Amino acid sequence: MKVVIVLYTAGKHAKDESRLYGCTENALGIKEELEKAGHTVVVTADKEGPESEFEKNLPDADIVITTPFHPAYLTKERIQKAKKLKLVVVAGVGSDHIDLDYINQNNLDISVLEVTGSNVVSVAEHVVMTILILVKNFVPAHEQIMAGDWDVAGIAKDSFDIENKTIATIGAGRIGYRVLERLVPFNPKELLYYDYQALPADAEKKVGARRVTDLKELVAQADIVTVNWFLVG
Amino acid sequence: MKVVIVLYTAGKHAKDESRLYGCTENALGIKEELEKAGHTVVVTADKEGPESEFEKNLPDADIVITTPFHPAYLTKERIQKAKKLKLVVVAGVGSDHIDLDYINQNNLDISVLEVTGSNVVSVAEHVVMTILILVKNFVPAHEQIMAGDWDVAGIAKDSFDIENKTIATIGAGRIGYRVLERLVPFNPKELLYYDYQALPADAEKKVGARRVTDLKELVAQADIVTVNWFLVG
Ligand SMILES: NC(=O)c1ccc[n+]([C@@H]2O[C@H](COP(=O)([O-])OP(=O)(O)OC[C@H]3O[C@@H](n4cnc5c(N)ncnc54)[C@H](O)[C@@H]3O)[C@@H](O)[C@H]2O)c1
Ligand SMILES: NC(=O)c1ccc[n+]([C@@H]2O[C@H](COP(=O)([O-])OP(=O)(O)OC[C@H]3O[C@@H](n4cnc5c(N)ncnc54)[C@H](O)[C@@H]3O)[C@@H](O)[C@H]2O)c1
Repeated sequence: MKVVIVLYTAGKHAKDESRLYGCTENALGIKEELEKAGHTVVVTADKEGPESEFEKNLPDADIVITTPFHPAYLTKERIQKAKKLKLVVVAGVGSDHIDLDYINQNNLDISVLEVTGSNVVSVAEHVVMTILILVKNFVPAHEQIMAGDWDVAGIAKDSFDIENKTIATIGAGRIGYRVLERLVPFNPKELLYYDYQALPADAEKKVGARRVTDLKELVAQADIVTVNWFLVG
Repeated sequence: MKVVIVLYTAGKHAKDESRLYGCTENALGIKEELEKAGHTVVVTADKEGPESEFEKNLPDADIVITTPFHPAYLTKERIQKAKKLKLVVVAGVGSDHIDLDYINQNNLDISVLEVTGSNVVSVAEHVVMTILILVKNFVPAHEQIMAGDWDVAGIAKDSFDIENKTIATIGAGRIGYRVLERLVPFNPKELLYYDYQALPADAEKKVGARRVTDLKELVAQADIVTVNWFLVG
């Protein structure tokens, strides 16, 4: 089998941190094993245009591995070139860079797999961080201080607590639900969610969240809205 | 009575946001009431040096109101000038700008009051935000993006989750305990605290925190340390 892996190049950072798996230097930690098993492995960061290593290696590739962080676009044109392609693995979550519609509509025998759930905690923590940063007006405050200024009134007038706010998530899946869990002890006024699936009753009760089935109503009722939604196609 | 209130000047921000009480323009929302009751009220932002409005108004001031955000220092020399001073109110929390030792050691009949607890939620939220910003390496990432760069490896190698980390607070009072409460659903490996008072057993149990009575040991065991300590004198 020929496996083409597209990752970003980390340079000296790969040496600084050996757990940085998603770079060409560390190749997800699987290159040697694949080669020992007799497979041909191409690892590259070069992914733009027909002369890129990625596109030149597509015609006889059996497996392509990519990430959403350094997306190697699998367009219709590229899929047409990849006559032997059987499997596309996303080493992470999010397949916007792959033309899933084209694969489906043409009934191509290509499987696209993600490592579902692989970084949901990181993303949920990131979402809570971002809510706090925006509501508390952190970035302008930080920039003022770095510039040697301190106009406390200019910062304070747009700085609020998240306590006692109505916070809504659009999408209450793996990430959205973890965000709700983390917000509970901040004592929001109310937690709301919009999702075409209702949460299991016990999960809903655990975070005290209320489902709103109309998107406009959800947004109208919320002080803070976070989008944790699975967009396909 | 003569009341001297030292606050920051907000300019146009005071008009933008009428709830911005801590500025000279809005004067904590108490100026008119005090004047109606027959008191003389001086509100100023001018607080540095002997020619400042603050220092010039000290000799016959009965009450001084200040904040930690725009601190009007009540040094030994200034307290000696303030012969009629009976009461100092901190409109907020934190009295580092007042020479409490001098007042105590000379048995002066001056009360210093803070609005204890007035902003503990804001501070606790700020602490959780700051932990996330530091551990997830937000500021360098933000700066890269604003500069039009994106060296994902350089950011990712120093970006971590707080899940499964040992997090310690030095001081588990009003703020420190609220920080512990907010960290629970982030699933830390362990929450530790150092305080000369043990938490009540039920409060300790609620957040699953372990008290460490040796400061060096606390720091040695922790991945993340936050200081929420009451420093006097
Ligand atoms: N770039 C990254 O690093 C990264 C990492 C993780 C997740 N993500 C993205 O975050 C999003 C959420 O991830 P997740 O793991 O929570 O996914 P998930 O599938 O667990 O949750 C998505 C939720 O959205 C709901 N939903 C989907 N379409 C909907 C619609 N049209 N109307 C109402 N509800 C709808 C689903 O019912 C589900 O509950 C995805 O888009 C994923 O690609 C990106
Ligand atoms: N600038 C601001 O806006 C602002 C606002 C709020 C609080 N603060 C500051 O934050 C700090 C904490 O505030 P808080 O409201 O949680 O106070 P607090 O009194 O409720 O808690 C402080 C805790 O520290 C412990 N402690 C004090 N000295 C100690 C020592 N030597 N050894 C061990 N433990 C000790 C106390 O037992 C107490 O539990 C204070 O310094 C306060 O001034 C600043």
